[in-house]
Amino acid sequence: MRFEITILGSRAAQPTVEHYQTAQVLNVHEQLYLLDCGEGAQRQIMRYGVHPMQINNVFLSHLHGDHCYGLFPMISTMGLQGRRTPLHIYAPAPIEAIVENHFKYFDAEIGYDVVCHTIDTTKHQLIYENKVLEVWSVPLRHRVACAGFLFREKQPPLNVRKSALDRYGLSIAQIVAAKQGEDITLEDGTTIANEEITYRPYEPRSYAYLSDTAYSAKAARLVKGCDVLFHEATYADADRKRARQTGHSTTLQAAKAAVEAGAKQLVIGHFSNRYDSTEMLQKEAATVFENTIAANEGTRITIPIIRNNEN
Amino acid sequence: MRFEITILGSRAAQPTVEHYQTAQVLNVHEQLYLLDCGEGAQRQIMRYGVHPMQINNVFLSHLHGDHCYGLFPMISTMGLQGRRTPLHIYAPAPIEAIVENHFKYFDAEIGYDVVCHTIDTTKHQLIYENKVLEVWSVPLRHRVACAGFLFREKQPPLNVRKSALDRYGLSIAQIVAAKQGEDITLEDGTTIANEEITYRPYEPRSYAYLSDTAYSAKAARLVKGCDVLFHEATYADADRKRARQTGHSTTLQAAKAAVEAGAKQLVIGHFSNRYDSTEMLQKEAATVFENTIAANEGTRITIPIIRNNEN
Repeated sequence: MRFEITILGSRAAQPTVEHYQTAQVLNVHEQLYLLDCGEGAQRQIMRYGVHPMQINNVFLSHLHGDHCYGLFPMISTMGLQGRRTPLHIYAPAPIEAIVENHFKYFDAEIGYDVVCHTIDTTKHQLIYENKVLEVWSVPLRHRVACAGFLFREKQPPLNVRKSALDRYGLSIAQIVAAKQGEDITLEDGTTIANEEITYRPYEPRSYAYLSDTAYSAKAARLVKGCDVLFHEATYADADRKRARQTGHSTTLQAAKAAVEAGAKQLVIGHFSNRYDSTEMLQKEAATVFENTIAANEGTRITIPIIRNNEN
Repeated sequence: MRFEITILGSRAAQPTVEHYQTAQVLNVHEQLYLLDCGEGAQRQIMRYGVHPMQINNVFLSHLHGDHCYGLFPMISTMGLQGRRTPLHIYAPAPIEAIVENHFKYFDAEIGYDVVCHTIDTTKHQLIYENKVLEVWSVPLRHRVACAGFLFREKQPPLNVRKSALDRYGLSIAQIVAAKQGEDITLEDGTTIANEEITYRPYEPRSYAYLSDTAYSAKAARLVKGCDVLFHEATYADADRKRARQTGHSTTLQAAKAAVEAGAKQLVIGHFSNRYDSTEMLQKEAATVFENTIAANEGTRITIPIIRNNEN
């Protein structure tokens, strides 16, 4: 039951020969979610061994080109490869008009639907869910409407402890009831609290993706308790004036957000290409939040599952 | 005085980790012309040491995504890098509507003009010229409106032979007249034919770019005498049925076009990614036209200047 982030592109607006613009793939229990989609994301998806056809949901933080130019070529390639499954895009307005326009001029004969879901970037709300995952929008502070995303594993269904089965000799009906969280009344009239019979097999994990944004205490609060926080750090602290002017964050601001959010790990990225090496940026952030890593193309972050003991 | 082609992308519709979709840069006397612009062309431009800001003219054969998706990210990057010089795009309709739409949603604050020139793909006509170069459209046979391009160096201005200067003691006025192609009358009344006094310093060179197209005898005829012919060869001969169905050419058809055109060299490319190696494709074409090379990312073809002896 994987919960794993793969960085496809780690840089800000201008690409370089070595580095790509923002894109990430999140794997939650073998379902893939694409977070932003800079130019060439489909090549990076192939490079890092992800099968693009397994991507059914794309989350775009905002509609600056460096976060979405890769979407249209990927839509075409999926069409050429015979995709039939709908592709869902979650993004701020005017995503619907942009996608509509694409189909006015390209991919006329495509064999699947691209379904747009417009996000209200002013609201923190549930924008997607399935059996195991919830995705929440997080209002960010950028030059255009922009949302972060909080990916949160749902509480797994309750398991019944073997020891309880043995001790109380539960019937099938009682087991079903216990799994649904009910207390159980035994034949002798004793009531056994649900906690005594059941346990959560593992702790839900979470990943917060905050890019692009100026420092936002509110956003940090909204993702409180996340296991891993990705926070953009376009600039070093020395360039904080430029960060403020452009609606971006510095290394220290990203680290401050990680402290505020109580994250276990911070991943910084979306680096301006004025910096040749990311080591200095990582070190700078680590002065405030020690467990910081710098995103690079191919960086893979696995959030380990913490299984609860049934006894 | 360079005349040099650099292959940025050599493959057809679907990119792979290693290979890019169609894009080439032509350098004529240090002016750069971009021919088609598949996704990631800007990265390839940087990789092969071409300065994107030196590109002022882009020629798009047709508006399938694999030939133009790279244009929009490149437009953005040029804007971020402070471009002020207009960028001219030569392409079939509806290029103007597509570019207009781009600016409706992206690059609102860009500091330069993107000027679209719609090509009539049914006509062989001069679509661009400057002091040293002419570009002619070449009607092609594809599934959508599609044009090839013939890049032809203009005749260089006449030079006056040193020997003639010495022998006839020409005045400045006579030299100017001779350079304009006039015969010269000496003081003794003798008329000297212009050919005796002047010579062309070098032979004009030419490059024909024919992609995407089914075999077209007419197109081959229109580029007759070109030094280098790029002809798409999406398929091997064994897949000629698929070539016919999709409006593409095979290796043997590309070679046939080179024979018809009397080209000195054939470059094949736009390969389907069903072929792992291009060697087999090159060998197949070479059975019909010996001087064939297969395009690959980074392939550079220099057409050497042939200088005329002044004596």
